[in-house]
Amino acid sequence: MPVANDVDLQVLARGTPGFCGADLANMVNEAALLAARQGKKSVEMTDFEQAKDKVLMGVERKSMIISQDEKNNTAFHEAGHTLVARLMPHADPVHKVTIIPRGMSLGLTQQLPLNDKYTYTKDYLLTSITILLGGRSAEELVLKDRTTGAGNDLERATELARKMVCEWGMSDELGPLTFGKKEEQIFLGREIAQHRDYSEETAIKIDQEVNKIVTSSYEKAKRLIIENVNALHRLASALLEKESLDGKEIDEIIFGNNTLVVQESLQMEEGKV
Amino acid sequence: MPVANDVDLQVLARGTPGFCGADLANMVNEAALLAARQGKKSVEMTDFEQAKDKVLMGVERKSMIISQDEKNNTAFHEAGHTLVARLMPHADPVHKVTIIPRGMSLGLTQQLPLNDKYTYTKDYLLTSITILLGGRSAEELVLKDRTTGAGNDLERATELARKMVCEWGMSDELGPLTFGKKEEQIFLGREIAQHRDYSEETAIKIDQEVNKIVTSSYEKAKRLIIENVNALHRLASALLEKESLDGKEIDEIIFGNNTLVVQESLQMEEGKV
Amino acid sequence: MPVANDVDLQVLARGTPGFCGADLANMVNEAALLAARQGKKSVEMTDFEQAKDKVLMGVERKSMIISQDEKNNTAFHEAGHTLVARLMPHADPVHKVTIIPRGMSLGLTQQLPLNDKYTYTKDYLLTSITILLGGRSAEELVLKDRTTGAGNDLERATELARKMVCEWGMSDELGPLTFGKKEEQIFLGREIAQHRDYSEETAIKIDQEVNKIVTSSYEKAKRLIIENVNALHRLASALLEKESLDGKEIDEIIFGNNTLVVQESLQMEEGKV
Amino acid sequence: MPVANDVDLQVLARGTPGFCGADLANMVNEAALLAARQGKKSVEMTDFEQAKDKVLMGVERKSMIISQDEKNNTAFHEAGHTLVARLMPHADPVHKVTIIPRGMSLGLTQQLPLNDKYTYTKDYLLTSITILLGGRSAEELVLKDRTTGAGNDLERATELARKMVCEWGMSDELGPLTFGKKEEQIFLGREIAQHRDYSEETAIKIDQEVNKIVTSSYEKAKRLIIENVNALHRLASALLEKESLDGKEIDEIIFGNNTLVVQESLQMEEGKV
Amino acid sequence: MPVANDVDLQVLARGTPGFCGADLANMVNEAALLAARQGKKSVEMTDFEQAKDKVLMGVERKSMIISQDEKNNTAFHEAGHTLVARLMPHADPVHKVTIIPRGMSLGLTQQLPLNDKYTYTKDYLLTSITILLGGRSAEELVLKDRTTGAGNDLERATELARKMVCEWGMSDELGPLTFGKKEEQIFLGREIAQHRDYSEETAIKIDQEVNKIVTSSYEKAKRLIIENVNALHRLASALLEKESLDGKEIDEIIFGNNTLVVQESLQMEEGKV
Amino acid sequence: MPVANDVDLQVLARGTPGFCGADLANMVNEAALLAARQGKKSVEMTDFEQAKDKVLMGVERKSMIISQDEKNNTAFHEAGHTLVARLMPHADPVHKVTIIPRGMSLGLTQQLPLNDKYTYTKDYLLTSITILLGGRSAEELVLKDRTTGAGNDLERATELARKMVCEWGMSDELGPLTFGKKEEQIFLGREIAQHRDYSEETAIKIDQEVNKIVTSSYEKAKRLIIENVNALHRLASALLEKESLDGKEIDEIIFGNNTLVVQESLQMEEGKV
Repeated sequence: MPVANDVDLQVLARGTPGFCGADLANMVNEAALLAARQGKKSVEMTDFEQAKDKVLMGVERKSMIISQDEKNNTAFHEAGHTLVARLMPHADPVHKVTIIPRGMSLGLTQQLPLNDKYTYTKDYLLTSITILLGGRSAEELVLKDRTTGAGNDLERATELARKMVCEWGMSDELGPLTFGKKEEQIFLGREIAQHRDYSEETAIKIDQEVNKIVTSSYEKAKRLIIENVNALHRLASALLEKESLDGKEIDEIIFGNNTLVVQESLQMEEGKV
Repeated sequence: MPVANDVDLQVLARGTPGFCGADLANMVNEAALLAARQGKKSVEMTDFEQAKDKVLMGVERKSMIISQDEKNNTAFHEAGHTLVARLMPHADPVHKVTIIPRGMSLGLTQQLPLNDKYTYTKDYLLTSITILLGGRSAEELVLKDRTTGAGNDLERATELARKMVCEWGMSDELGPLTFGKKEEQIFLGREIAQHRDYSEETAIKIDQEVNKIVTSSYEKAKRLIIENVNALHRLASALLEKESLDGKEIDEIIFGNNTLVVQESLQMEEGKV
Repeated sequence: MPVANDVDLQVLARGTPGFCGADLANMVNEAALLAARQGKKSVEMTDFEQAKDKVLMGVERKSMIISQDEKNNTAFHEAGHTLVARLMPHADPVHKVTIIPRGMSLGLTQQLPLNDKYTYTKDYLLTSITILLGGRSAEELVLKDRTTGAGNDLERATELARKMVCEWGMSDELGPLTFGKKEEQIFLGREIAQHRDYSEETAIKIDQEVNKIVTSSYEKAKRLIIENVNALHRLASALLEKESLDGKEIDEIIFGNNTLVVQESLQMEEGKV
Repeated sequence: MPVANDVDLQVLARGTPGFCGADLANMVNEAALLAARQGKKSVEMTDFEQAKDKVLMGVERKSMIISQDEKNNTAFHEAGHTLVARLMPHADPVHKVTIIPRGMSLGLTQQLPLNDKYTYTKDYLLTSITILLGGRSAEELVLKDRTTGAGNDLERATELARKMVCEWGMSDELGPLTFGKKEEQIFLGREIAQHRDYSEETAIKIDQEVNKIVTSSYEKAKRLIIENVNALHRLASALLEKESLDGKEIDEIIFGNNTLVVQESLQMEEGKV
Repeated sequence: MPVANDVDLQVLARGTPGFCGADLANMVNEAALLAARQGKKSVEMTDFEQAKDKVLMGVERKSMIISQDEKNNTAFHEAGHTLVARLMPHADPVHKVTIIPRGMSLGLTQQLPLNDKYTYTKDYLLTSITILLGGRSAEELVLKDRTTGAGNDLERATELARKMVCEWGMSDELGPLTFGKKEEQIFLGREIAQHRDYSEETAIKIDQEVNKIVTSSYEKAKRLIIENVNALHRLASALLEKESLDGKEIDEIIFGNNTLVVQESLQMEEGKV
Repeated sequence: MPVANDVDLQVLARGTPGFCGADLANMVNEAALLAARQGKKSVEMTDFEQAKDKVLMGVERKSMIISQDEKNNTAFHEAGHTLVARLMPHADPVHKVTIIPRGMSLGLTQQLPLNDKYTYTKDYLLTSITILLGGRSAEELVLKDRTTGAGNDLERATELARKMVCEWGMSDELGPLTFGKKEEQIFLGREIAQHRDYSEETAIKIDQEVNKIVTSSYEKAKRLIIENVNALHRLASALLEKESLDGKEIDEIIFGNNTLVVQESLQMEEGKV
């Protein structure tokens, strides 16, 4: 089946970082199947988009019954991620946000890097941690409660902060050293655990530095949301109404006339973290 | 065999959270069998209820000989759970309480959520911990002794409190970080143990926060029981007489004319924990 | 072979807590065999008693040659257990005491609960610990020496005290929390070790509480023995002479005219531990 | 082959504590073989003695070439054990001492208990530790040097002292508790290691108590040797000349006219350890 | 196929330390293949060089699309390694530097030792650590950011510093002792982990010494780059233009007329680390 | 093939401590082979010596290309071992020193004990540690640098010192106790690791005592070398020239007329370590 004229391969490629050959083949087959089911004569861009999401995030679970409370919660949580991701300089562009459950998650904010990355700068990592904490920040500030749904975000943020300190030498306090030795490939050919080969005194310093990175990023996420709380409410409302928003829709919802102001104020603060 | 008109599928569904296909099939077969044994022409709601309890909680062990002391103890223990569960705002409705031994337990208080939950709020978790501690609270206040029967409740309450602090970022003291790294799938494809990757200093803070959550919930459970100690005695007496009580019976026993007052006083205190 | 008229099944049943079907079959066969060997026409109560002891405690080892010193020691040790068990309120009735070696042990004090227990109260557990320490107390007070024979008693007393603190929430200092996480079913389907998931600070508190429970129980056991030292000497002498004593004989030896006094003084102290 | 008239079964039996049936059969065969090789008509006491030593301690290694220095060292080491064992009240009688190498050891002091022991008193254990340290004490006082040959003695003395504190409740400081939990039967059905389940604070106390027991026993051993240093020299000289000494020879060498005095002075000190 | 006249076996040999027979055979085959593909009549030096790089570092990945930002970053990172390696006395000569990605790395600075080394001096090890830290130093000083790309350099620098302290007795603070015991050959015949057999107090000293070595080397690398920042810019520009530079080209880029001055100033500082 | 008249079996035997039957057979075969290759009619002493070295130390690797720097380093390192070994009272006689690489080592100093030893005195062990540290001492004093080549010496010296403190009771500070429990025979029938069963407080004391033994021995080795630095230079020069030296040559190089003086000054200091 031929590919329709509207298919933009570059946009598709950007949306599939980390895809291996089998994933790509999988996506093309899914797209062709979707087009065939609808009696189309060519595979269109929407077919590829849906196929990509299915491969990337698992099957949509539209039949799942979710209470209004949890839907509301999820909408604000994802709006938090999206708002922070859209406002941080150095962040990858926001491609899509949805509160349709897929696989194991109730919602998703998806960013697309402009090109493949092989290394990450300290600024980019701090930005990623701040975006990860945007969901919990929105919950806490608007809903005045915290949910278990943020657990995975916090785990990933903590892990990134720990690696910044222990593997990538990004803490001035601990210097350009690495901490913890990986135990390699025993039994089943995989790393099992980091082996702690440092003193308790060093362990305390590591904890303090990891804490400093995560809590200062959390403060920044909360500040961004407070300063743009109206945009957050608009995003959450739109999500509750439409369930999914693409990058263009997100921009229209967030930006009235104060976009540039926020960006500038942020860039001035950037150096302090 | 046809299903009787009195069968309310929605109530059944709410009572079976976490049931997989095999469990449901199992329940339907048990219900049909029970109806057949009694020579019924259709499977009635009571058959489904009994079948559900059997699948959910194991076979009733009516032949087990339990001393009057232990029966009394169990009645007050379960009455404690039930009273706290019924009085806490945010708690799932109480469906049933029984002191007929089933499987490994001497009694049971069963709550039915109004709908499936995929995430839990901090308030809901604190409520759950308080309910879990309601049994021991009743033992201690009324019987002036503590039994080993509460061990499982305490273990579950501690585990929830620890997860609030270490996995779900719900302690202000420790912030939006996670603590402890799971060791994955060695040998037999399952998590074995949390890997402690933090300092002793952090371990002390975690212990303090977990302790604060559990002991303040315990204080709340004890306060609720003291303020409603007559309702507790009425519940325990009814249990010793009838062995099982459903949600409607529980409400009739607990509430005279002071229901709303308790609820209000609680809601005012809610924010402090 | 018929069962004799003197067989009291209720007494037999109380003496076999934890017996499974195979154990019961085993006991009945042994009893029949014993009766047959003596040319009896029916299986009498004494046959059942002997059969039960054999299944419960292993074969009597009458041929074992034990020095007079060790026999004396064992007699005072068992007399200590028996005296404390008989004097403590809340203790299960004492059924038998013997210094005939059986299996791995040189002597045995056997209590029979009046009915099956599924949970244990804090009072009952403190009583059990005090009885376990009664043997060593007698050794120390009368013989002015300590033997390795008490090692197993101390281990069980310590384990009970540790569970009171760490699993059953019975220490006010540590509160209604549990400590230590069980590692489940690795390799051969069994728990291997408690996983220590708490700080050193908490470990110190646990040690202090466990120590407090065991040492205060030890003080109580010693006090009981000092106040009734004549009864202890009478019990030990009777054991050295007859080797075994049943519940009725024990009562006759212990109680002259001061029984009730002891009981009352104890009940007054009970609340302090 | 018949047994000679001089064979004293009681003495043989005392010298074989812990022998199982196979060991006994082994010893009898060896004795018969020895007698046959010498063309004897009956198996004599000396044949049984030699056979027992072979089963108990391994084959004599008379061909092993040992330097005069090491022989001298061994003689004083064994004389130290022997002297202390002979002078301590509560010690089992000394049966034999030898500097003929056997199996893994260069020399041996053998005590024979007067009867089987199933439990050990604190006094007996302190005596055993003091005897174990008698070898090193002699080395240090007379030869002014310490050898690696005492390593095994020290290990056994430390282990006994640790068990006194951790398993048998014989330290007043730590009380009638046990410390450390045995990990049972993993993989190959055997205990692997003691599981440390106590705090560092308790570990420090245990170390101090174990140290107190071993060092005070060491002081006692050294004092005994200093007060009887002439007997030590006489014993070592006799060993260098004859290589082996039996109990009667040992007594003749040690005791002139001051035996009772030593015993009395010791008994007065006994209570202080 | 014959070997061309321009092939210098000694240079090839120096560039293949650690090659085993199979690696050498592999290299020769690859070189012959490359020559054959180009229709050459003999295998030339360039063929051997390319074949060696392929065996040593993996296949070139010229098709990998790398953003201009990351290319720039890599160029300054490698220029940092190269500049430090070229300026340190005691360093092995720099053979080549490239920003063509190969295998897992985005760039590479290759040094060739003048002859095989079987042992390493403290000076040589400090030099190696300083060169390893040259990449991160350049990133930090010129780009004012830190990337994850330096993680592997930091790990190797830390490991060398730790071995200097723990295995090679090169810290005056800790003296000529070794720390940590290797666990040998369990299960699959390989070392698994260093066994920590020292106190926390010693662990703190080790951490301090390792830190001192790495941070003082880092200071030296940064000082060298600051003093020669123009050479760094020239090297990075040339790399961005030509992608690879050989030893001769590197020398031409770095050295105008101030070479000797730098060398001298360094040699004076050398003793202080 | 017959054995030549010059073969001195006693010297051969002294040079093969720890040889088992297979090693001896191996040596005899190698010697016969060597003699046969040279067309000899009998196996001479030199054949046995070469065969012994091959079995003991691995094949000579004369073809290995070693830089002049490393050869120089090795010569001073081995000269250091040799000089200290020759000057220490209580040391075994020096048989040979070589800088021909064999197996894994670049050089070797070989001592031959005058007779088999089954135990070691504290003096002998301190002497061994001092000799092990003689190589690093020579490097540091003469070459003003430290190499990784001494790593194995330091490991063995540390291990001996640790055993003196933890297994052989040779530290006054820690007394006649042992520390650490061996874990036996798991999985593959071998000890895996010492099990640390003592407190952190004890671990600190052990570290201090081990450190004291090693550093005081190091000071003694350095003092010996400083006082005899001319002999060290003569030894190193001779090694660079001849590659191997036997005991007689070593004596001629070291001793002019000041031998006895050194020995005496050492014996006076001996007691202080």
